[in-house]
This record gives sequence, structure tokens and C-alpha cells, in this order.
Amino acid sequence: MLYYLFDYLDRAYDLPGTGLFQYISFRAAMAALLSLIIAIPLGKRIIHMLRRKQIGETIRELGLEGEQQKRGTPTMGGLIILISILLPTILFARLDNIYVILLFVGTLWLGFIGAVDDYIKVFLKNKAGVSGKVKLIGQMTLGLIVAVTLYYHPDVVVREYLSPEKAATIQQPVRTDARNRPYVEGKSLRTTIPFVKNNELDYQKIWQAIAPPLADYAYLFYIGVVIFIITAVSNGVNLTDGLDGLAVGVSVIVIGTLALFAYFSGNFLFAGYFRIMYIPHLGELTIFAAALIGACIGFLWYNAYPAQVFMGDTGSLMLGGVIGIMAVMVRKELVLPLLGGIFLIETVSVIIQRNWFKYTRLRYGQGRRVFRMAPIHHHFQKKGIPEPKIVTRFWIVAAVLALLSILTLKIR
Amino acid sequence: MLYYLFDYLDRAYDLPGTGLFQYISFRAAMAALLSLIIAIPLGKRIIHMLRRKQIGETIRELGLEGEQQKRGTPTMGGLIILISILLPTILFARLDNIYVILLFVGTLWLGFIGAVDDYIKVFLKNKAGVSGKVKLIGQMTLGLIVAVTLYYHPDVVVREYLSPEKAATIQQPVRTDARNRPYVEGKSLRTTIPFVKNNELDYQKIWQAIAPPLADYAYLFYIGVVIFIITAVSNGVNLTDGLDGLAVGVSVIVIGTLALFAYFSGNFLFAGYFRIMYIPHLGELTIFAAALIGACIGFLWYNAYPAQVFMGDTGSLMLGGVIGIMAVMVRKELVLPLLGGIFLIETVSVIIQRNWFKYTRLRYGQGRRVFRMAPIHHHFQKKGIPEPKIVTRFWIVAAVLALLSILTLKIR
Repeated sequence: MLYYLFDYLDRAYDLPGTGLFQYISFRAAMAALLSLIIAIPLGKRIIHMLRRKQIGETIRELGLEGEQQKRGTPTMGGLIILISILLPTILFARLDNIYVILLFVGTLWLGFIGAVDDYIKVFLKNKAGVSGKVKLIGQMTLGLIVAVTLYYHPDVVVREYLSPEKAATIQQPVRTDARNRPYVEGKSLRTTIPFVKNNELDYQKIWQAIAPPLADYAYLFYIGVVIFIITAVSNGVNLTDGLDGLAVGVSVIVIGTLALFAYFSGNFLFAGYFRIMYIPHLGELTIFAAALIGACIGFLWYNAYPAQVFMGDTGSLMLGGVIGIMAVMVRKELVLPLLGGIFLIETVSVIIQRNWFKYTRLRYGQGRRVFRMAPIHHHFQKKGIPEPKIVTRFWIVAAVLALLSILTLKIR
Repeated sequence: MLYYLFDYLDRAYDLPGTGLFQYISFRAAMAALLSLIIAIPLGKRIIHMLRRKQIGETIRELGLEGEQQKRGTPTMGGLIILISILLPTILFARLDNIYVILLFVGTLWLGFIGAVDDYIKVFLKNKAGVSGKVKLIGQMTLGLIVAVTLYYHPDVVVREYLSPEKAATIQQPVRTDARNRPYVEGKSLRTTIPFVKNNELDYQKIWQAIAPPLADYAYLFYIGVVIFIITAVSNGVNLTDGLDGLAVGVSVIVIGTLALFAYFSGNFLFAGYFRIMYIPHLGELTIFAAALIGACIGFLWYNAYPAQVFMGDTGSLMLGGVIGIMAVMVRKELVLPLLGGIFLIETVSVIIQRNWFKYTRLRYGQGRRVFRMAPIHHHFQKKGIPEPKIVTRFWIVAAVLALLSILTLKIR
């Protein structure tokens, strides 16, 4: 909101400092700072309130060291993150931006589902919570909404600048920007993928090549991909959330990287310098991401080992879903298996463990295990590595994966 | 070194991918990655070797929880950092760059002093180690070398682009770059400081204003500032190094911020966009910084709570000194009290504690304390906050200070 106010002040009176609000970097920094400043005192109150209401998560008995001391730690701390991002986003982001609107909707939607789940588990003492099916339907519906909006909304476009020669010959309508540079702009199912020419892949063209009659339905494929990504990451973060500071720390790293992509892709100058897709309006995503990072760090203040609060499904379903949405928006959903590798490994470890157990039980009469325990972070715990060290190491691996996913996009 | 090789290949054969080495961002990412890849296996070996040789630091008895379990943890782990940065810097940085050369010299110099100190303390069981005076002389000599080199070296300049009108009237010799844009370039004692016009301050002009006859000796003042900064930060990190992961984590954040400043200030395009000083050649500093960050993170792999190794003076004197040198190079030494606020607070807490104790002992016959224990991280430990939580919170504060120091430079 402040954007419009300061934009007006800047144009009308040219007051000192008001021009700063033009800078996405400035607004993002302010948003991060404000949400952190909100989250820390708010966190204290929420933890106090949750503890008074006895909202302690009934912890699975895993036979792990330090498990007993976790009893009584309140969950549902995702509320701290949810509430902390509201004001900074409203103040610093442009609320007429479709990316910001969708992210806002997605955050509240998944936060709500997660909160209901936590509420049922903790207050109603029903361990199952919202049934897995309901959660899945919730995630997939959100995925559908996001996919369809991105597919149809007129502001979701890719812009390509042209050389004067090309501009003269091209068939599409050529427009020019404020500085008279020719470009074409349009809806596109293009996404980013490493190791191919220009690091770009067009879902439409792929289907054109594989099965020409199906090319007209490429958008259905795109919608399917979006639904899958959002659902998978949402559940992935949910599984990762098992050690103090783990899920939130890794999320901060992943969101930070996606924010960087959005910032550079959304800026004409930088997109040109790094030779990446220029996506108008995308820069505002950076501001939402920054607010989320600030809130997550504020949550980490209390969630750091030994945790005083857990995020619960309120936090993990939401963080994962938002990461999925952002990845689709910055057109990096195919880089996500690398960038969000921690979430992938955690998910895969559970799948392997479960299926191998079932298979060997059928085959040998007795179930066998690949990992000492799944998700894989518990495997390392069983091996005797102390919890805070596992967490720090997972953060380091996440940072390396982030660096790698930035790097791969430069190698062509 | 690879820069020249790939530059040659690129010019001569236009091989795919060789052009990437032009990008400082690419070389920096590779340097960080390589030094991390070196540090992790190397760390394992060095820790094994140090432990076998019984290089356990004789820990001060502080009456703190968990102190006993730290006995026997080897120190001198700064060696891991020192060795890990060698190859990446040699491979990815331009070795004819004065900033890289000075940083290299500084790192080895302080690493050497620290290592001798650790060696005397641990092997020769002499608790005093190198006397404080010798350390101080070593730090100040390095400061002098850095200051004088920066003052006299012809590559250490600031470049200012001019409007055509200004170019026609200016007295200095005006040059033009490859794209025919006019600029002036020259030695300058300008530095960055928040809240003043253009965020710039010229040591020369300050003296001109305060005491005109002394303006000719402004360089002496500059040299004094540089010596003070390098010595102060070196000792500040040394004091901060008291909890697992604390000093190295905060250093990574500070070095990362300075690297960002160097990257943007050293790039014509970005310096223009952000309206900050354009300092040619400074971009290479980013690569050294990236290598150092990679090595630090590799060290953190083992230094995370509960630590398997401490950095010792080998690490802390070196990291602090390098941070000081970098800050002077990117002309942000006056922002350092904010950016490196953790180091400042730690140092100030010791000074306050010591002096208040002395004063009250004289005055009341019995010494009193302001903090339960200094440096201040032990104060929080005495208050019962668990070590890993204090460390994470100090990291968070360091990150906020980094964000603030970036922000203040935009407000004008």
C-alpha cells in the first residue's frame, strides 16, 4: 500500500526518500525487517498462550534421546509466521499484483487447513487430525486455482526483447517500451530447466514434438504439473518438520533463492545482464518472500534447539505450499528437485522405507528396513549424531543445493 | 588462474561455456563450492590428526554447563579454513588483482601468528601463548602494509561517470570507456557512510574543513583508521569465539555482506543502478570472499554444536583481520560498527566489565560486575539459555545488522 502513497508523494512533491519505494530491494528489506520485528514479541505471546491452553503436541514415541524433554512443547507455532507476514505484505507489496494476490490466498488457505488439523489433534486429542484425503483435496484444489489463474491471467506473461532486424520480420505484434526498445510479450508455457539450450523448455513445444494432436491440450499437462508440485512440496516440508529448526531453516534458504530468481527475472536490467527470462511484474514476489523470510527467522528465534514451540501443520503445509507456488511463478518448478532437494530426500526416504518394509515382509515373512528410521533425519539421530548438529548440516546441504541450482542455470 | 586460460580459449576458439569465466558471479560460486568440498574431507583428517596429537585447548574454567564435555576438543581448526581457500582462490580469482593479493597476504600473515599462538599454548602447554604485545604488533604491521598499499597502488581508484556537460567543464583529465562514456578516475580517500549526502565522506575534505593546514596529512589519518579497524576486528572476532559455531557463523554473514558490496560496487552496471561508488577491479574481492565463506561453512560442519573442533587463534585472528581488510577495501569501514555489531558488542562488554570491576573495587573495596560474565555470550549462558539457542540468536541478530547496514546506505 505504501507504494502508492509514496509514489504519489514522489510525483506530486518530490519529497526526499519517497523515491526509494520504487526500489523492490528497498521494500523487500523493509518487509523482512518488519515481519521479524513483529514475529519476535508476537512469538513470545503466542507461545505463552499456546502453552497455557496445553497445546502440547503428542509426540510419537521414537525411542530417541531427548524425546522426553520435548513433551509439553506447544505446537501450532506456524501461527506466528502467518500473522507476522500480514502487515508487512499489505504495507510494502503492491496489492494489485497477481503474484502477490495468489501467494496471499495460498498462504491463508494452507495455513487454515493446517491450523484445523493441529486443532483437532491437540485440542480434541484426536491423533489422526484432518484425514489425509481431506488435506490432499485441499492442496490439490489450491494447485488447480493457482494453475488456472497463472494460465489465464493477462498479467502473467514473458517478455522478449528483439533486435531491430528481428522486430521487422516477426509475425507477432511488436510493441515498444518507454525507451523505444521493441519487444514481444505473451502468455507462454515456457519454464526453466538446466542443461538445455537457453535453459528454457516450452511445455507446448514438447507436446508438439512428442504427440502433435495433444499439443492443444498442453495446458492440461501444465495444470497437472502445477498441482503435483504444490501438493508434493507441501507434504515434503511436512515430513521434513521433525527436528528443531530443520524445516524452517531449509525453507528460508529455498525461499531466499526463489526470491533471488524473482528479483532478477523481474528486473529488465538484471534479466538482460544474466540472460534469463524477463517476466514483468514478478519482482513483487520478492517482497512477499522477504516478509515470509523475516517471519520464519522470527519463528526460528524460538524454534532453535531446544525448541520452545513447533510449527505444526499450520506452518509446514503452508511453507511447503508457498514454496511450490513460488517455484511455479518464477518458472523454476523443474529445478525444484535440486533446490528443494532436502524435502525430496526426506519424502523419498519415507517411500523407500515403507515399500521396502512391505516388500520384504511379503517376501521373507519379516519386514526389513533400509534406514534405521524414516524420515531420514531420524536415521542420523539413531546413528548418534546430536540433533543440533544434524540440523546445521542439513542447512549447509540446503545452501549448497541452492548454490548448485543457481549455478546450473548459468551453464549452457 | 583459470580466468586467463578460459579467457584465452574463449577468444581463440569460442568454446561453449568458456565465456562463463568472465562472470564474477560464476567464478565466485565455483570458488565457494570448491572450498567447501575441500574443507569437509580435509576437516575430518585435520581433526583426527589434531586429536591424536592431543591438541586439546586447555579450557578456562568458567563454571558453565557442558564445559566438561568440551575438554579434549582439539583447537587450531582455523587451519581447515586456511588450507581450504588456497586452491579455489588460485584457480578462480585473478592473481594480478591488488585486492586479491593483499587479502591473500593478510590471511596467511594472521593465520601464521594465530597458529604460532595456538602451538605455544597447546603443544608447549604455555597458557600465555604469544604475548599480547607481539600479536598487536603483528596486527598493526599488517594494517600498515594494507593502508600504505591501498593508498599508493595505482589500481586502487574510484571511477566517476560524468554527464557530457560536466565532462566539458571539469578540470581533471577526462577519459572515456569502451562505450565512449566520459569518466574521471583517481586515487581518493572517499569512504561510505550512512545518512550524509550521497552516503560518501572524503577523509581529505573533512580535514580540509576542520583544520586546513592538516589536510595534506589526511593520508596519515586514513592509515591510522585502517590500522585501527584491522586490529580491532581481529581482536573482536577473537573475543566472540567462545561458543560453538558463533564466531564462524557471524563471520560468514559479515563476509557475505561485504562480498555483496564488492560485487555491486565493482560492476559498472549495478553500481549505476544502485547509485553507489563504482570501484574498478573490486569485483575480484567477491571471489576471495566466496572461497572464504565456503571454507568457513565447511569448518562449521564440524564446529556446529556440539563442536568437534575449535578454530583457535589461527581462525579468529585471521577471520577478523580479513573482515577488517575487506571493509576498508570496499570503503565500508565506517559501516562496520553496525555490520559487525556482534564483534563490537562482545568487545565492549569485556571493556565495560573489566573497567567497572576495577573502578568499583577501588571505590567500594570490592569489584562489581555489569554482566554475569563477559564476553556477553557467556552472560546469556549463565542466565540459563542453552548454548545452541544463544548461537542461533546471535546469528539472527548478525543477519538483521547486515540487512540494516545495507538499508542505511539506501536512505539519503
